[in-house]
Amino acid sequence: MAAIPDIVEKDLKKLETSIDKLITTKIHVIKEIVNYIIKSGGKRVRPILVILSARLCGYKGEKHIPYAAIIEFIHTATLLHDDVVDNAKTRRGFSTVNTVWGNEPSVLVGDFLYSKSFELMAREGNDMILQVISAATTALSEGEILEIVKTADINTTEKEYFQIIGNKTAVLFAAACEIGAILGKSTQQRRKDMSNFGYNLGMAFQLMDDILDYTSFDNVLGKRVGTDLQEGKVTLPLIHALRSATDEEKSYITKVIDKPRITARDFSRARKIIEKYNGIDYTLSTAENYTKNAKGHLKSFPESRYKEALLTLTNHMLSREK
Amino acid sequence: MAAIPDIVEKDLKKLETSIDKLITTKIHVIKEIVNYIIKSGGKRVRPILVILSARLCGYKGEKHIPYAAIIEFIHTATLLHDDVVDNAKTRRGFSTVNTVWGNEPSVLVGDFLYSKSFELMAREGNDMILQVISAATTALSEGEILEIVKTADINTTEKEYFQIIGNKTAVLFAAACEIGAILGKSTQQRRKDMSNFGYNLGMAFQLMDDILDYTSFDNVLGKRVGTDLQEGKVTLPLIHALRSATDEEKSYITKVIDKPRITARDFSRARKIIEKYNGIDYTLSTAENYTKNAKGHLKSFPESRYKEALLTLTNHMLSREK
Repeated sequence: MAAIPDIVEKDLKKLETSIDKLITTKIHVIKEIVNYIIKSGGKRVRPILVILSARLCGYKGEKHIPYAAIIEFIHTATLLHDDVVDNAKTRRGFSTVNTVWGNEPSVLVGDFLYSKSFELMAREGNDMILQVISAATTALSEGEILEIVKTADINTTEKEYFQIIGNKTAVLFAAACEIGAILGKSTQQRRKDMSNFGYNLGMAFQLMDDILDYTSFDNVLGKRVGTDLQEGKVTLPLIHALRSATDEEKSYITKVIDKPRITARDFSRARKIIEKYNGIDYTLSTAENYTKNAKGHLKSFPESRYKEALLTLTNHMLSREK
Repeated sequence: MAAIPDIVEKDLKKLETSIDKLITTKIHVIKEIVNYIIKSGGKRVRPILVILSARLCGYKGEKHIPYAAIIEFIHTATLLHDDVVDNAKTRRGFSTVNTVWGNEPSVLVGDFLYSKSFELMAREGNDMILQVISAATTALSEGEILEIVKTADINTTEKEYFQIIGNKTAVLFAAACEIGAILGKSTQQRRKDMSNFGYNLGMAFQLMDDILDYTSFDNVLGKRVGTDLQEGKVTLPLIHALRSATDEEKSYITKVIDKPRITARDFSRARKIIEKYNGIDYTLSTAENYTKNAKGHLKSFPESRYKEALLTLTNHMLSREK
């Protein structure tokens, strides 16, 4: 993402220190694996949302830093488990943890990060935040499971797709923003606004992710383009195209999506079918709608550089390249 | 385990209802998998400990039931992840979830159960319990990771082994008992006593588990005898034997423990080496010491049928057959 707002720069430095400090364990390999994945160039989108939301909601303290770290831990835990589930080889241009250390440590270090996050939150003692985050992680696992259920199902509907990405991505964005509002002791309505802002932004984020998986390049994305098709993930570009595709095209996609290994030619032909029926444009305009909705939820907030930064970040979402 | 105390029978029925009620999800397959594993004849040792500890500590309410359910959810989540990590085929006489549904749902339904547990606890709002359980789950993942680090390492020391089983098993037993004390609004000292009781009982439980893996029979255990040796887990019966084993015996064990697949003959010979150096007896007497310690921590509690039941359960630990 192009836009990391200047005003969070200082807090992001504190975040990195906090991440190091909070991961305490006697087991050396845990530290090693956590450092490997957490320092491998994540965009820190979710922590940035915690930081900006807290400041937008008038929070003056420093608790937003550990919460930002916790949100990143939870996100990292899901990545560790995702990569096992997807049998992924690279992430952010590096070999995945499951490739370097094996599936077992990936699963267990993911569990460690989940538990550590809840341990840290329990110590902080803010029950409202704990409720928001634990509900988010439950939804997250539900989204991931639904995604597996729908793997290689070319009859996946747009509604089902939205349910999947809503749960697996948007809910954690929503939680990140709601934490800020809770820290700022905002009204119920403001909490809802921030949560909705995050949710809509998260939907746009995931839609762009699913576009980039068809339109980007390996070296830009830091992972293989075409991964979704390879893994049988039926995302919106494909769902939209399939609505108008001919029977022959449909049966071709069915064949490809069931293949254990797709070729460059398979991918290229699938992409052509998607382009023919404007699958990318449709997904992009859907993402645009979500960013509009997101911005709408910030309307009632007074102008500030934090609001400005969140709006900029939302606009940049549509032009992100990785 | 032979002894399920009569006085918890009613509460155990409530527990089963609570388990059903608390696992709410829109995703059908989650319910299906959770039911499959959670209804497959678990011994409910940890929930029984929550129930008896709460009553022993004078708790009169009904919250011990959902907490007992939560402890079982967390335990079940670890089983789901363990079976993926160990690539286990059977548990409690049934095919494992990873065998029936695959590794992906095993990992993700485990995550769901973890998250759901924390969500339920966050809603209950008892921060002390939340701290105890989250610290326990962190320790648990650390124990499992350490176990992997030490896989097939015949130089694993008794101290390292105790650290592994302490974290992976005893800490959750300790948490189960401490919850009871917290619900009963016990003094700090009583909380510590209950936690220590649980810890020592958990150690004895795991030691017996590690004995049974050498001495039991497949149909009694509900899983393959010899699994630890097969998986390269160096447990106390072996650690003790290796201390006195000849170089030839040591090199034989090294060879077997590194094998991807051991034969019945390998297992039989390894077992003979363990018997020769009294590895089983030594482990049994270690377990006995732990049960003595456990009982010691109950001394200061006034006599009651709950204390009686906990003592009986502790004594039965040494003669358990599965």
